[in-house]
Amino acid sequence: MSVRSILRKLIEGEISLEEAERAIESGSMVIGDGIRFDVSRKMRTGFPEAVLASGKSDDDLVDIILDVRDVIVTRLPGERFEAIRDRVEHLREDGYRVDYHERARVLVVKSGKPATIGRVGVLAAGTSDIPVAEEARVVAEEAGCEVMTAYDVGVAGIHRLIEPLREMLEADVRVLIVVAGMEGALPSVVAGLVHVPVIGVPTSVGYGVGEGGFTALNSMLQSCSPGIGVVNIDNGFGAAVLAVKILRAME
Amino acid sequence: MSVRSILRKLIEGEISLEEAERAIESGSMVIGDGIRFDVSRKMRTGFPEAVLASGKSDDDLVDIILDVRDVIVTRLPGERFEAIRDRVEHLREDGYRVDYHERARVLVVKSGKPATIGRVGVLAAGTSDIPVAEEARVVAEEAGCEVMTAYDVGVAGIHRLIEPLREMLEADVRVLIVVAGMEGALPSVVAGLVHVPVIGVPTSVGYGVGEGGFTALNSMLQSCSPGIGVVNIDNGFGAAVLAVKILRAME
Amino acid sequence: MSVRSILRKLIEGEISLEEAERAIESGSMVIGDGIRFDVSRKMRTGFPEAVLASGKSDDDLVDIILDVRDVIVTRLPGERFEAIRDRVEHLREDGYRVDYHERARVLVVKSGKPATIGRVGVLAAGTSDIPVAEEARVVAEEAGCEVMTAYDVGVAGIHRLIEPLREMLEADVRVLIVVAGMEGALPSVVAGLVHVPVIGVPTSVGYGVGEGGFTALNSMLQSCSPGIGVVNIDNGFGAAVLAVKILRAME
Amino acid sequence: MSVRSILRKLIEGEISLEEAERAIESGSMVIGDGIRFDVSRKMRTGFPEAVLASGKSDDDLVDIILDVRDVIVTRLPGERFEAIRDRVEHLREDGYRVDYHERARVLVVKSGKPATIGRVGVLAAGTSDIPVAEEARVVAEEAGCEVMTAYDVGVAGIHRLIEPLREMLEADVRVLIVVAGMEGALPSVVAGLVHVPVIGVPTSVGYGVGEGGFTALNSMLQSCSPGIGVVNIDNGFGAAVLAVKILRAME
Amino acid sequence: MSVRSILRKLIEGEISLEEAERAIESGSMVIGDGIRFDVSRKMRTGFPEAVLASGKSDDDLVDIILDVRDVIVTRLPGERFEAIRDRVEHLREDGYRVDYHERARVLVVKSGKPATIGRVGVLAAGTSDIPVAEEARVVAEEAGCEVMTAYDVGVAGIHRLIEPLREMLEADVRVLIVVAGMEGALPSVVAGLVHVPVIGVPTSVGYGVGEGGFTALNSMLQSCSPGIGVVNIDNGFGAAVLAVKILRAME
Amino acid sequence: MSVRSILRKLIEGEISLEEAERAIESGSMVIGDGIRFDVSRKMRTGFPEAVLASGKSDDDLVDIILDVRDVIVTRLPGERFEAIRDRVEHLREDGYRVDYHERARVLVVKSGKPATIGRVGVLAAGTSDIPVAEEARVVAEEAGCEVMTAYDVGVAGIHRLIEPLREMLEADVRVLIVVAGMEGALPSVVAGLVHVPVIGVPTSVGYGVGEGGFTALNSMLQSCSPGIGVVNIDNGFGAAVLAVKILRAME
Amino acid sequence: MSVRSILRKLIEGEISLEEAERAIESGSMVIGDGIRFDVSRKMRTGFPEAVLASGKSDDDLVDIILDVRDVIVTRLPGERFEAIRDRVEHLREDGYRVDYHERARVLVVKSGKPATIGRVGVLAAGTSDIPVAEEARVVAEEAGCEVMTAYDVGVAGIHRLIEPLREMLEADVRVLIVVAGMEGALPSVVAGLVHVPVIGVPTSVGYGVGEGGFTALNSMLQSCSPGIGVVNIDNGFGAAVLAVKILRAME
Amino acid sequence: MSVRSILRKLIEGEISLEEAERAIESGSMVIGDGIRFDVSRKMRTGFPEAVLASGKSDDDLVDIILDVRDVIVTRLPGERFEAIRDRVEHLREDGYRVDYHERARVLVVKSGKPATIGRVGVLAAGTSDIPVAEEARVVAEEAGCEVMTAYDVGVAGIHRLIEPLREMLEADVRVLIVVAGMEGALPSVVAGLVHVPVIGVPTSVGYGVGEGGFTALNSMLQSCSPGIGVVNIDNGFGAAVLAVKILRAME
Repeated sequence: MSVRSILRKLIEGEISLEEAERAIESGSMVIGDGIRFDVSRKMRTGFPEAVLASGKSDDDLVDIILDVRDVIVTRLPGERFEAIRDRVEHLREDGYRVDYHERARVLVVKSGKPATIGRVGVLAAGTSDIPVAEEARVVAEEAGCEVMTAYDVGVAGIHRLIEPLREMLEADVRVLIVVAGMEGALPSVVAGLVHVPVIGVPTSVGYGVGEGGFTALNSMLQSCSPGIGVVNIDNGFGAAVLAVKILRAME
Repeated sequence: MSVRSILRKLIEGEISLEEAERAIESGSMVIGDGIRFDVSRKMRTGFPEAVLASGKSDDDLVDIILDVRDVIVTRLPGERFEAIRDRVEHLREDGYRVDYHERARVLVVKSGKPATIGRVGVLAAGTSDIPVAEEARVVAEEAGCEVMTAYDVGVAGIHRLIEPLREMLEADVRVLIVVAGMEGALPSVVAGLVHVPVIGVPTSVGYGVGEGGFTALNSMLQSCSPGIGVVNIDNGFGAAVLAVKILRAME
Repeated sequence: MSVRSILRKLIEGEISLEEAERAIESGSMVIGDGIRFDVSRKMRTGFPEAVLASGKSDDDLVDIILDVRDVIVTRLPGERFEAIRDRVEHLREDGYRVDYHERARVLVVKSGKPATIGRVGVLAAGTSDIPVAEEARVVAEEAGCEVMTAYDVGVAGIHRLIEPLREMLEADVRVLIVVAGMEGALPSVVAGLVHVPVIGVPTSVGYGVGEGGFTALNSMLQSCSPGIGVVNIDNGFGAAVLAVKILRAME
Repeated sequence: MSVRSILRKLIEGEISLEEAERAIESGSMVIGDGIRFDVSRKMRTGFPEAVLASGKSDDDLVDIILDVRDVIVTRLPGERFEAIRDRVEHLREDGYRVDYHERARVLVVKSGKPATIGRVGVLAAGTSDIPVAEEARVVAEEAGCEVMTAYDVGVAGIHRLIEPLREMLEADVRVLIVVAGMEGALPSVVAGLVHVPVIGVPTSVGYGVGEGGFTALNSMLQSCSPGIGVVNIDNGFGAAVLAVKILRAME
Repeated sequence: MSVRSILRKLIEGEISLEEAERAIESGSMVIGDGIRFDVSRKMRTGFPEAVLASGKSDDDLVDIILDVRDVIVTRLPGERFEAIRDRVEHLREDGYRVDYHERARVLVVKSGKPATIGRVGVLAAGTSDIPVAEEARVVAEEAGCEVMTAYDVGVAGIHRLIEPLREMLEADVRVLIVVAGMEGALPSVVAGLVHVPVIGVPTSVGYGVGEGGFTALNSMLQSCSPGIGVVNIDNGFGAAVLAVKILRAME
Repeated sequence: MSVRSILRKLIEGEISLEEAERAIESGSMVIGDGIRFDVSRKMRTGFPEAVLASGKSDDDLVDIILDVRDVIVTRLPGERFEAIRDRVEHLREDGYRVDYHERARVLVVKSGKPATIGRVGVLAAGTSDIPVAEEARVVAEEAGCEVMTAYDVGVAGIHRLIEPLREMLEADVRVLIVVAGMEGALPSVVAGLVHVPVIGVPTSVGYGVGEGGFTALNSMLQSCSPGIGVVNIDNGFGAAVLAVKILRAME
Repeated sequence: MSVRSILRKLIEGEISLEEAERAIESGSMVIGDGIRFDVSRKMRTGFPEAVLASGKSDDDLVDIILDVRDVIVTRLPGERFEAIRDRVEHLREDGYRVDYHERARVLVVKSGKPATIGRVGVLAAGTSDIPVAEEARVVAEEAGCEVMTAYDVGVAGIHRLIEPLREMLEADVRVLIVVAGMEGALPSVVAGLVHVPVIGVPTSVGYGVGEGGFTALNSMLQSCSPGIGVVNIDNGFGAAVLAVKILRAME
Repeated sequence: MSVRSILRKLIEGEISLEEAERAIESGSMVIGDGIRFDVSRKMRTGFPEAVLASGKSDDDLVDIILDVRDVIVTRLPGERFEAIRDRVEHLREDGYRVDYHERARVLVVKSGKPATIGRVGVLAAGTSDIPVAEEARVVAEEAGCEVMTAYDVGVAGIHRLIEPLREMLEADVRVLIVVAGMEGALPSVVAGLVHVPVIGVPTSVGYGVGEGGFTALNSMLQSCSPGIGVVNIDNGFGAAVLAVKILRAME
């Protein structure tokens, strides 16, 4: 938690009382070379600021992780994690989990476990969509969701979909995250079958007219099944945040 | 309710026992000239099939309304409603409400009032976005939501936004539908301030690079505030359906 | 038939022996003001040249119809047919059928009935897709196909699809024409269920990201069900021609 | 064949009787880490599921090949095949062919030869289009087609086209697969000359406005020769599947 | 001729000696409400400024015509010509031709006949492309070209093309203007057959992916036949100007 | 002035003391049916909120004009002004100017004259670009600018440009607004010649690839002359606001 | 300064008197292999020609730097600077600064310091936008601006924005350069709060629909806050040039 | 020359008399692995087939060069030429020139010099456009043109353009090839100044909205200077072919 980070830095003498006060009041804190971390986001939005690794240097990443600590880093490929591993794993000595999820390309640095908030289902149409689905799973679990998954259940063989979907509904899943590339038809079919909210996540899996994921994105937005909430292409993180907000709104 | 429609037609002798049985079992019923109405949708998805007026002839619309009765017709401009008014208003004699919402361009034909399921906030950035916001409002209210609205609160003067937003949160709104055309920045600003789920509805209000609503759509999908669920351009109906599904998932 | 048209004009003294000879040998004939009709197309490709009404004046259309006679005119809205009706219906006195199909917007002027060549199924996802489906149906029937249709069977309620599809397969349908707008997922689902060739016809039914039919088109091209042959948006005529060529290739 | 794969695994003790029963009944089988293989696809669609190598790791590919065995892997560049070669070639000891087609970038692992089902022609406009044409050729041959090819016959010199086309028609080719990049005009010219069905395959060969293959794709869809069935850019596999379905529909 | 227009206005007392001097020296002259006519363009570029009617009011058009007189007005639909007819036809009394070409939508106001500069061929793929081809023909003829035309000779039946093309080449045509909509393949085929320069004119004839003429444009730019000079969509005027410049460069 | 509007309404008894206080403090005021006018914008941004007529009904427009009074309405075509004329012109009796600028499609309702703030030049490339240039001129003049204009000075005859440009610079113009459609090259040429800031305004004048104004927009953004500030297509209003802000920043 | 460069070369005997005369009169000078440097640009436009490193070879860059000397090189990544470092750093011996700004990827070779011309603020929405913001800062400072910066102040937490913005306004900043990728909403929010001119710089930071920066660009152009001057994506240099021109226009 | 290649192969015993006869009569010859070289193209179109290196393997290139010999290879980067150098340079022993033009990335293998056919001017807007301009120069020279060049003469400093343009016109240049990236305005300015035909070549030089060259392409097509013949992006070869055809048409 970010406010906690500030308090920790205060206790450890890294910042002065005045700096801690100003950071908490103004809601932001300058880290390293011009990075202004949003410390009050969790208070305002119910979800801490995560860090998108792409577009940031390794040094910037390490600075943020060591300063903030309770943090989720997304889009961090295996080789980048290896490059910074030695500089972050020692946080375990301070009682932090430092968990790298390879398929999801997500690094979690956390000092505790979240309270359970409800059950989420994650479906993926093809094997190439799994990394995005895994990003959603890891982020949702770190926010306290119990996650059930079923991958490779695309519409080219919709019979594969029925059984896992029934299991999820019977297990009282409250939100479904449906990940699909190519023509992106899976959320349409699923939303036509269930009454829980469906979050559509298009992926950049495809070629030719499907290159980049725009066909999947547009299919989900223009679905003939109404009520699908769509997030940006490959944005498993955003889907998980939305699912968590929905579960929390139920409390 | 659709199953109810079948039963009503059975009682009134419009269809035979066999036809009613087959319609309920197969989940679809043929109306007029090749229209196959989805009677079990409400059972499956928690929301009855609505009728998109654009692309259908007046005769098709009247056929569907008279056959199905408990129905919501969207994208029905005032002049089209006037053209079919006489052929549908007599349903009031059978105990139906026949409510036409001009700004929302929505016609509601219903025989009862839904049970209350929770509170939804609808924000619109500009005056030209109001028709889409109203479509969301009417549909959400017909599904049992209490709806609070604040229009003309776009980011060019964000001070206008703060007060209505605070009122909504204090009134325990569980979901926010945020409607915006032009550059579509309002959902980003709102989602950075609140913890309830935000549904972004881009509108086709704009010109030049904003023509058609794609700039607003892309802004919402690429928002730096994570967790916005986006629906198609001008799709107030879909936003309401998603809001209703979220509220129902809470029950 | 076009060669037959030339011979008829020769017999009726409209053209000279030399003109008839040259038209048959060169494979083209000049009609009216610079229109060069392709008389040998049927010999070469197994399908006579049809006339796309859009982009041609009423006078051009009437010239072509009266000169060629055995002809199919597509994209001819009802009001345009009314405008030329009086100038073409007298062909009935010469033994021609003059059939205008309103939903399909197709005018058929023919002197005979084609030989039966096989059975084709036509599916349409929504009611707004029916005109395109009907264009395919009429053209296929005029080429000798027996056509079975099932409309309004889109993926938002896939249970509606199963029964009509089973009936078609049991009736030994050899090709399926699947017409869909919006997100265009129906051909993907159908092609994942059947072994006959599927022809996908995207329609311009949709709004926002689906405007113009490009989302449906791309979904069909990028389908995860391989082997769908796709035609241009709203091109029911082209789909019928392909179906007919497939059936004829079987002979 | 996929059901056969299940039975083989049963006999070899890799799966239990219950697992085999469930896989055949539910139509899917979980392989490795979350991959759900579609075992009944061939029964349903007449064509087994092929594996697109791009977007899958080498380990995933080897898992699938060793588990499923009768399989076609597409988009597998030479260097990737070399990387997995040692782990799959030993299948030859079990009586499987393990054939890698370098130009086509296709790996075939099969235990038998298909029955002959008819003759297909494959035309390619330029030398750079040959890999896609070869993908179509290999896949069609593996499904039992006899394939005739003529490459480098584009419209910049249409005289090159005439002779090979005549030979194909005389050899009773039933379907033509026409592959072209750049402006993609070859299918239009061919379809204007022949009566057999033409499948158009645009390729990503081109630059400037032709970059990515969209000009070729659009040319084929908007062809003035009606009745071309178009597949996605570079999708030689899909073209072959459609050709095979057409030939089988003739049986 | 524009300089001539200035001199005429000087003689007729409409402008003073000083104004005439300044207009000729500065190369521009203000007409009506802020329109700055380019009087020296013909001296500089060999072609007088033509007037694009679309985007100008009828009053602006009449002002320009009456002031400049030797002028070509393009994109002037029949009904617009009718609306200004009475205000311009009296120029005939002053010795001007006032010729309106309906199909070409071109109005010519000229006092003389140009010297002959060479022969140009104009080909059009379909009947709907004829208006653009006619615009090119009229403009080229007004600049002194002898023009041969052949319309409706598209690639769906390339046999129709051979004879007219041979006639043109035998008649010593020096430049070919090739007009095509739909997939725009005709210039590619023609440029592969002839040695004279080919000017490609895409038209907005098409639908679906061909809507607006972009498919035809891109096909011509990405042609596998090198050396086609392409102009904007529907720009028959520009094609004629280029042809005239080529013929003049030969002198 | 907006605060002034509130005070006026207070004096005239239209609103209570409390309402006036709240409107000034919260910075917004609700007008008519849900329109929330931004009263403090002028204080914050130095420019009052203008009203874009497109997308608003005539009734909404009249409500705003009568309530706010000191207001500029843009994109108001002549026929729409005629429709509301009678309902707004009586404001003249209260001492307001009610000026409708036909070419600019701008309605100005003002009670005073602004103080002069500096000189602005407005250039337009073609006659069809004049309406957008006039919109910029009227808005700039209403904010206190002296405006010099030169229209029809596009790059096809750059000699026309030199003289008016020299006059503007000699008259000490501080900002240049350069309006161009078609290929939009004029700002590039101008910015390469002068040292004052250049504001580029692309217009939707064009056809084919220039349709909608995107070619002009992109040319200005990608200009090889650095330092052009570009506004949206047809946005003469925005260009004027930017020019005014620049002039005011100089004070 | 470029004219100074010519004079220096004259004094050092690198060029003859005649060459110097011709270069100054014609306004251009040929350097190396066909590069024609624009020596009079500073006199005409108030800003010397800068050199865009991308698309030029290292040898071309060194030739230009050594010949021109007073020069700014943009888009020069660290590794490229290292490659040419030894060939340019010896200019320090001649009294030049040779400053490489790593984050900004800008190399400055200058012999003096510019006179101070005013104060500019630079805001960046996210950490990934900093390189573009730094490019603007360095270029503005080299032209004599005092620059204040605040980075990482995007709209997902607008409270972070308020304090730095107030400080800038209190420090009498005359122009604001606002840099943002993703949905690009920051300039809209800022321009709604301040009265100084805002220059919007979209960056290519983003993914999915935000890939390449077009969403940010379009948001700024279609902003509901009027009067934002927008430059090309990632064009920090252009933004600085515009800011400098605005400041100079105030003198 | 291609027919000459066949005759050479006949004399050297590489092909039989029958093969030579068939190749000349059918107009094509199969080389290596399925490459069908167009031997009669020069006879038909006045220009031999050139070989685009991109998309072909080194082995394919060497096969073609050694078989055809009189050949121009375009888009061959320096490193690719080095890779095949040893396998083609020995052709010099047979009396062939083997000239590699590095900037133009063109390899010429020729046994003679072409007859002179006229003078062409090549202009390039920026230094990054030079490779494309050089491709045009080399190809035009190999076809017999005398070529004059002027590079780095873009519209940001149009004074640089005037002198070289005057020299070209005085030297009786008959065609101008104008190469430009970025906003592509140079051809518009040039075509407004001269009476010879202008060929516009857009280049992929640019970034942001100019990425890929589409802004330059569209500017040339939508030029307000009529009569520019445009070729594909980066297509210096095609521009040269068009120039040569124009010069030959003058003979």
